[in-house]
Amino acid sequence: MEASELINFFKKDHFAALTGAEIIEVKKGYCKAQLKIEKKHLNAANVVQGGAIFTLADFAFGAASNSHGQLALAINVNITFLKGVSQGTLYATATELDVPKKLGAYDVIVTNEKDEIIARFNGLAYRKSKA
Amino acid sequence: MEASELINFFKKDHFAALTGAEIIEVKKGYCKAQLKIEKKHLNAANVVQGGAIFTLADFAFGAASNSHGQLALAINVNITFLKGVSQGTLYATATELDVPKKLGAYDVIVTNEKDEIIARFNGLAYRKSKA
Amino acid sequence: MEASELINFFKKDHFAALTGAEIIEVKKGYCKAQLKIEKKHLNAANVVQGGAIFTLADFAFGAASNSHGQLALAINVNITFLKGVSQGTLYATATELDVPKKLGAYDVIVTNEKDEIIARFNGLAYRKSKA
Amino acid sequence: MEASELINFFKKDHFAALTGAEIIEVKKGYCKAQLKIEKKHLNAANVVQGGAIFTLADFAFGAASNSHGQLALAINVNITFLKGVSQGTLYATATELDVPKKLGAYDVIVTNEKDEIIARFNGLAYRKSKA
Repeated sequence: MEASELINFFKKDHFAALTGAEIIEVKKGYCKAQLKIEKKHLNAANVVQGGAIFTLADFAFGAASNSHGQLALAINVNITFLKGVSQGTLYATATELDVPKKLGAYDVIVTNEKDEIIARFNGLAYRKSKA
Repeated sequence: MEASELINFFKKDHFAALTGAEIIEVKKGYCKAQLKIEKKHLNAANVVQGGAIFTLADFAFGAASNSHGQLALAINVNITFLKGVSQGTLYATATELDVPKKLGAYDVIVTNEKDEIIARFNGLAYRKSKA
Repeated sequence: MEASELINFFKKDHFAALTGAEIIEVKKGYCKAQLKIEKKHLNAANVVQGGAIFTLADFAFGAASNSHGQLALAINVNITFLKGVSQGTLYATATELDVPKKLGAYDVIVTNEKDEIIARFNGLAYRKSKA
Repeated sequence: MEASELINFFKKDHFAALTGAEIIEVKKGYCKAQLKIEKKHLNAANVVQGGAIFTLADFAFGAASNSHGQLALAINVNITFLKGVSQGTLYATATELDVPKKLGAYDVIVTNEKDEIIARFNGLAYRKSKA
């Protein structure tokens, strides 16, 4: 799929749409997505819920790992929450560690508008055929 | 906090409410939560999005880790997606590995109505004072 | 392979032998291994090095995940270090989360002689054919 | 500690010495270490054991995370094994995600002599005081 097709495909993600996560840019092995923080993203302690941060990062991971044309399934993610946040816009930037084979490793960094790191997300995707 | 207070506290989680995750039961070091799958939880491939599964599991983790009265912050989560799912109800059961100290380790298993394991979620929480 | 064959096979693991990790018991989906702490396992701060704890847990994981007859490759591990230790014997107990398919999830708990939890290890194995 | 002091301190790591892992270079927030593969590093299937790869990466992580002068404890590691290897030299390069606070996130990439990625290691360290 081309970048525009990929963006259209990922627009069909109902859960991403519910949360407000949006793809800004996608190319082979790369994706940048954003989430404008609203009240609906906050947990009971009034900071952005871990699930909202995960969803944003996972969306970028999904687009980057599917950017080679083969279906890639997320099998494992490790996420570290480094800083709480309660307003502004979050950005998730997904990059590919290496040319993916059956397994592909992706790093996603979630930052706020001041470029502070909010979370680190390390994803592992599986493909049935080599990319 | 008592169980009923904890449930009321977690009802203020806007993101959990948005996704539809609900606490069924909570006691010291334990929480069971559920999510009735709707169209809004599906991704572009029509299976439940990883972020929705994570949010459900994280909600159970948050309640279990905060069940001792001290504020516990999630610092790391490792999640493995074992089976795709597109309908029915999901359940997340969070248990405590041990009596928590500054660090507390929690295991959350996400199952469907047939008791098949959908995801494994291993969380690490940090407390400023001992539980 | 039968349990006795498995134990013999894992005796050929040179690195496990170097570290002193030994299998105590193995059966389908399960393994218990031990490591008697010696000076050689300590790091510069005189506690058992993370690599020694990992190796013990990974050895139990390898035996449990290969107990079904198909070759299983470790693809991902998440390990949390909960308590430092500098003497005595460590035990690693590996269990299978579910009947493994292509992916198999294993939990390994590392304890000391007082049954205190030293580390939690969550492993993911991949098989070319179903177990 | 200065770089030379750090290298001397880590020379006291008995387990690293047992495995043959050596620090090549260390500076603030960075470490490169190496391991020359010998027969003692192989598992029963004649590839380098996961524990040996972990130990190398963990050694680089430990030096990088302790390069700021405060004691940093490893609390969580996620490792993905991307490629089997049975000969040559392995290199582990540890970098710091950000200026560490109480929590510090480190990425370690393990490569072989052809610069192929053997493993990805994501570590989380905890300090009692800010770095």
